Amino acid sequence: MGRDLSALFDPISVAVVGASDDPAKYGHAIAAQALRANGRRPLHLVNRRGGTVLGRTAAPSLSALGEPVDLAVVSVPAAGFEDAVDEALSCGARAIVAITAGFAETGDAGRARQRAVAARVRAAGAVMVGPNCLGLADNTTDLFLASDTFTPGGIALLSQSGNLALELQLRFRPHGLGFSRFVSLGNQADVTLVDLLVDCARHEGTEAVAVYAEDFADGRAFAEAAAEAGKPVVLLTAGRGDASARSAQSHTGALTTSADVVGAACRDAGVELVATPRELTVVLAALNGARRASGRRVAVLTDGGGHGVVAADAVEAAGLAVPELHQPTRERLRTALWEQSAVANPVDLAGMGEQNPHSYAQTVTALLAAEEVDAVLMTGYFGGYADADATGGLGGGGTVLADGEQAAARLIAARHRATAKPLVVQSMYPESPSCRILAAAGVPVFGATEDAARALAATTPGAPYPGITPLPAPAPPLHESGYLQTRRALEAAGLPFPAAREIRDERELIVATGEFRGPYVLKALHLLHKSDAGGVALGLAGPDELLAAFREMHARLGAASYSVEAMADLSDGVELIVGVDRDPRFGPVAMVGLGGVLAEALHDVAFTLAPVTAERALRRLRALRTAALLGGVRGRPPVDLSAAAAAIETITAFAAAHPEIAEIEVNPLLVRPHGVLALDSRAVLARPVPGPVPGPVA
Amino acid sequence: MGRDLSALFDPISVAVVGASDDPAKYGHAIAAQALRANGRRPLHLVNRRGGTVLGRTAAPSLSALGEPVDLAVVSVPAAGFEDAVDEALSCGARAIVAITAGFAETGDAGRARQRAVAARVRAAGAVMVGPNCLGLADNTTDLFLASDTFTPGGIALLSQSGNLALELQLRFRPHGLGFSRFVSLGNQADVTLVDLLVDCARHEGTEAVAVYAEDFADGRAFAEAAAEAGKPVVLLTAGRGDASARSAQSHTGALTTSADVVGAACRDAGVELVATPRELTVVLAALNGARRASGRRVAVLTDGGGHGVVAADAVEAAGLAVPELHQPTRERLRTALWEQSAVANPVDLAGMGEQNPHSYAQTVTALLAAEEVDAVLMTGYFGGYADADATGGLGGGGTVLADGEQAAARLIAARHRATAKPLVVQSMYPESPSCRILAAAGVPVFGATEDAARALAATTPGAPYPGITPLPAPAPPLHESGYLQTRRALEAAGLPFPAAREIRDERELIVATGEFRGPYVLKALHLLHKSDAGGVALGLAGPDELLAAFREMHARLGAASYSVEAMADLSDGVELIVGVDRDPRFGPVAMVGLGGVLAEALHDVAFTLAPVTAERALRRLRALRTAALLGGVRGRPPVDLSAAAAAIETITAFAAAHPEIAEIEVNPLLVRPHGVLALDSRAVLARPVPGPVPGPVA
Repeated sequence: MGRDLSALFDPISVAVVGASDDPAKYGHAIAAQALRANGRRPLHLVNRRGGTVLGRTAAPSLSALGEPVDLAVVSVPAAGFEDAVDEALSCGARAIVAITAGFAETGDAGRARQRAVAARVRAAGAVMVGPNCLGLADNTTDLFLASDTFTPGGIALLSQSGNLALELQLRFRPHGLGFSRFVSLGNQADVTLVDLLVDCARHEGTEAVAVYAEDFADGRAFAEAAAEAGKPVVLLTAGRGDASARSAQSHTGALTTSADVVGAACRDAGVELVATPRELTVVLAALNGARRASGRRVAVLTDGGGHGVVAADAVEAAGLAVPELHQPTRERLRTALWEQSAVANPVDLAGMGEQNPHSYAQTVTALLAAEEVDAVLMTGYFGGYADADATGGLGGGGTVLADGEQAAARLIAARHRATAKPLVVQSMYPESPSCRILAAAGVPVFGATEDAARALAATTPGAPYPGITPLPAPAPPLHESGYLQTRRALEAAGLPFPAAREIRDERELIVATGEFRGPYVLKALHLLHKSDAGGVALGLAGPDELLAAFREMHARLGAASYSVEAMADLSDGVELIVGVDRDPRFGPVAMVGLGGVLAEALHDVAFTLAPVTAERALRRLRALRTAALLGGVRGRPPVDLSAAAAAIETITAFAAAHPEIAEIEVNPLLVRPHGVLALDSRAVLARPVPGPVPGPVA
Repeated sequence: MGRDLSALFDPISVAVVGASDDPAKYGHAIAAQALRANGRRPLHLVNRRGGTVLGRTAAPSLSALGEPVDLAVVSVPAAGFEDAVDEALSCGARAIVAITAGFAETGDAGRARQRAVAARVRAAGAVMVGPNCLGLADNTTDLFLASDTFTPGGIALLSQSGNLALELQLRFRPHGLGFSRFVSLGNQADVTLVDLLVDCARHEGTEAVAVYAEDFADGRAFAEAAAEAGKPVVLLTAGRGDASARSAQSHTGALTTSADVVGAACRDAGVELVATPRELTVVLAALNGARRASGRRVAVLTDGGGHGVVAADAVEAAGLAVPELHQPTRERLRTALWEQSAVANPVDLAGMGEQNPHSYAQTVTALLAAEEVDAVLMTGYFGGYADADATGGLGGGGTVLADGEQAAARLIAARHRATAKPLVVQSMYPESPSCRILAAAGVPVFGATEDAARALAATTPGAPYPGITPLPAPAPPLHESGYLQTRRALEAAGLPFPAAREIRDERELIVATGEFRGPYVLKALHLLHKSDAGGVALGLAGPDELLAAFREMHARLGAASYSVEAMADLSDGVELIVGVDRDPRFGPVAMVGLGGVLAEALHDVAFTLAPVTAERALRRLRALRTAALLGGVRGRPPVDLSAAAAAIETITAFAAAHPEIAEIEVNPLLVRPHGVLALDSRAVLARPVPGPVPGPVA
């Protein structure tokens, strides 16, 4: 259900502790902003020297107010922080906004201090944002407790960077985007990104949640909350490269999570992952209005070939398709347009739009109505006819055409309202009156072609079924992770392995050969890296070859025991690697890819949060670059993808149910035309007590 | 040397044929523009109805002028086009700008008409741009023969789209970029893109050439001209996707060349290939001033963590590196900056820039001086301190800091002048006075992080040694392309093959086994697809197995002859595919990739114009995604890359010297730890007379 943050976003009364007249002090900016809500609720300014601040009498202390305070902003020197928080709690504060810096971001001592304060806040039944944050604002409750003013709108911004929030503020304006809430995350000592995401998901005034985060705290919980948000969640995160990781660690005490894991979590949760403030803005502009394309088929419309082909390329580069239009649509356009107009896709009015802007509206109408079209991109000169002279337009009739163009814009806006399909516009004149008419009607308008294409991609959900599979209840823990123990555990979980028997000497080896026939594989056990140490012998045709191999290997390695296994027929099979690692923030994360040499050479692997359902596993396998190899190439039969997917579900569910397993890997998982076979596996147990993880023992 | 286009760009006199007072007519816009050059050279307006046009007396015909005309703009209805051109030539015109449309873009009849006109123009020793073009302008000679005014500057724009030219005009302005020349390519019936590129390369007023083209005409000549231009050439082209290809074919009679080939030609020629007008502008802004980074190591500087990590990711996503700074640089920064500033990379002033903008200048100075830094990216808030109040800056001292920030900007500009290293700025306030100071000093300033990163990438040459290897003189043509003929020809060119002998019967087979030992390979000849037809038998241990295989295969296929070959040892080898296709626009194009199943499954192939020098072949091989497989993985020895490169040079030079070869392919080319061996090859000869290309005969 999430924590009750009502005192944080709609407090009964507010006090700014550390309010100041000194413009260089942050307490000055916050107090000035807070005053904008004048009258909505009691506001107290506290400055330990008393006197007046911003023309109001300042109390020397919270206690001196003589009345309870619901929310206290604490912007005092670090030395006085704990006292200020304690005093706020004793004055009945249910919410603390902690501006003061100098805690986790400065090292362990600071981390310990903020942990202690957070504990006291929770003990008092209160909540605290920060410390080391820039405050918060809620435009739906006239709560202004940050140094900046945020234009009202439907976007809740949860940000770990103040400057990025400012850039977003500037970028939102031309798209008519504004903020329902702004929260500076700070060190998340008490209230976390997840708490805020859950609250914004149920916040009526919020249509979409934008997040800039380097530190996810509980990443799995973030993904789960995002998957359940019921409204768009867009994540701008950094730290894909080493450089960013270095920098992220150097401030806000953040530990940047690897890009693979974040990418997987976002795909699973249906979160739009973006790389820059500009991309974040474009995606929000597209999702605003909550239109979604039901497919990836885009129709492109222009009045001059250049823009059409450039836009078609951009659309395809964004992962969408620009398919040929169907015959009925082409005929409908052919009758409406000039002879020289192109009616394939892109549709090119070829100058007709300039002579008769109404042709734009006719074409958009036809395209939005076409069943083979999921979304429409209008690109190029539209918007320029109205003031062609001013803009030096190509011989357009100038103001002569202005009315025609704006009438066309109104008609396009009406058609847009009448359909659920996304329409996106790229215009050389995005600020023109005609484009403003479109924007006012909820049609996203961009100046750059790649922005329009990215926006369309955002309206097309990437993963059809977002959702995080919950972690299963822990199974009885494994206490040993030797090769055979892991193998037996996975076998018990339902993963098929070839016949195998542990042997210690030649007598037991003979017994084993009686149990199943060759060719055989011999593995020395209890070695760090079996194969590198020459502890694996393959393709031993019969008992004699097996015995010879055993004698040679035993003389060389003197292992305590060995595993004799039936050698699988590798022909017509494809080797996969399936592993699960435990990420500190996102929990068990599955890796699936082509095995053997290729896995290393191509890094063609897919990640997804574990456990992985067979259905999601199938999608990941099909998304591999090397997926073609699974379908059977050069006349080889296709392999059993559903058996592979089932095996992935088994392995990842097993790993998820065993929190004591730090890493587990089945490599290779042989996938054949019929069924799969796990040929080798290894696991690493995490130490019960924190400490360095031991190397594999398999 | 290129054609003499002086009459086109600096004519002695100009006449606009089809000049009109009707604003809907293109002849009106051109005449109006042409008049701006009033006085620079005689200008005549011609309208067959005579009278006055734009307040000037219009002549009823060119001949009626009674004096020669050096350049004639022809903007008349298509029916009168030929007569108008002929009259212009008879009046001594050395240059024609043909606006009139309705030729190649309408089909074969139109193509024939424009071909005939172009022939007459050339016969008269004149040149013609168009038809179906929008005119041209040369700001360095006050020649304004297009409907639009182009801001003067150093960029020559050769464009096949008028609207894109307009968008570029709008995008250039904020970056202080302008045009030396603008030429609308039209149908290129006479003067081609290549002619214009060569002329702009030697044009003093032109610093860089921007091209928007869908139709390259002679693409190889374009690549050669670009490689020799001696100034940046940036190409915006479309048609990567099928959709664009459809549209491109549907106008301007363009035939879009495949993206692989265009990409290869641009890499070879050192042309910056861009996908959108925005990217074109960013790249030109970066190349303006002709700074080049000597390496890919970028230092990122910011005053707030968020921008730093986001920019570092963008820089790495653009293919550059953000390495840790060396100790001396870190110490230098440590002494200059705050304790909480991060001095790794990104460098994060952590608020010091806001309190003391001079710290920006100190840091940029240190970074530009660092030997481990090739280029610097400054990102974030800089530009906002000056008018922080106006922009709602984060508690900045507002105007208090204005002077400090602009002083810092001037200092940064000075440091920038004193070094050859590129400095690029991303600012939330690119139009701020401080950023204008930087821009005026030639520091590219962008509002978007990804633009700044793209700009830096443009300053770092992708291919270290651009250049197009000239086509060799044609060798005596092959008349047969059977498997053995191709094999012998390549062998003669120096490509090693295993021992082989053509046989027709068992007797010849016995003889062959006497010449070289097994294991053998048996190939049936004169089959369309040997292996698919079961015409290849591998690993025949000795004469007996070979004979048995021959009997079986001959009974089944009854081929006229067979090839007995020594079977190569495939262990430790990697199979490559090396092919050369003949592109209609770019001539022989080489394809190099990993062979066998992988080539098809991964599409991991590299393209480059043939012939390919061994040195370039080596770079292409190393750039393959699967290059790791060549370096030896899992303890396998690395393969002989230089032998592979030499073989690629041999094969591609051979193909280039045989224009009659439409396709040739060596697959697999077995690359071993020492040396290479061509295991199979096929060629397809183009028909001497135009017509469908026959299937392979090997």
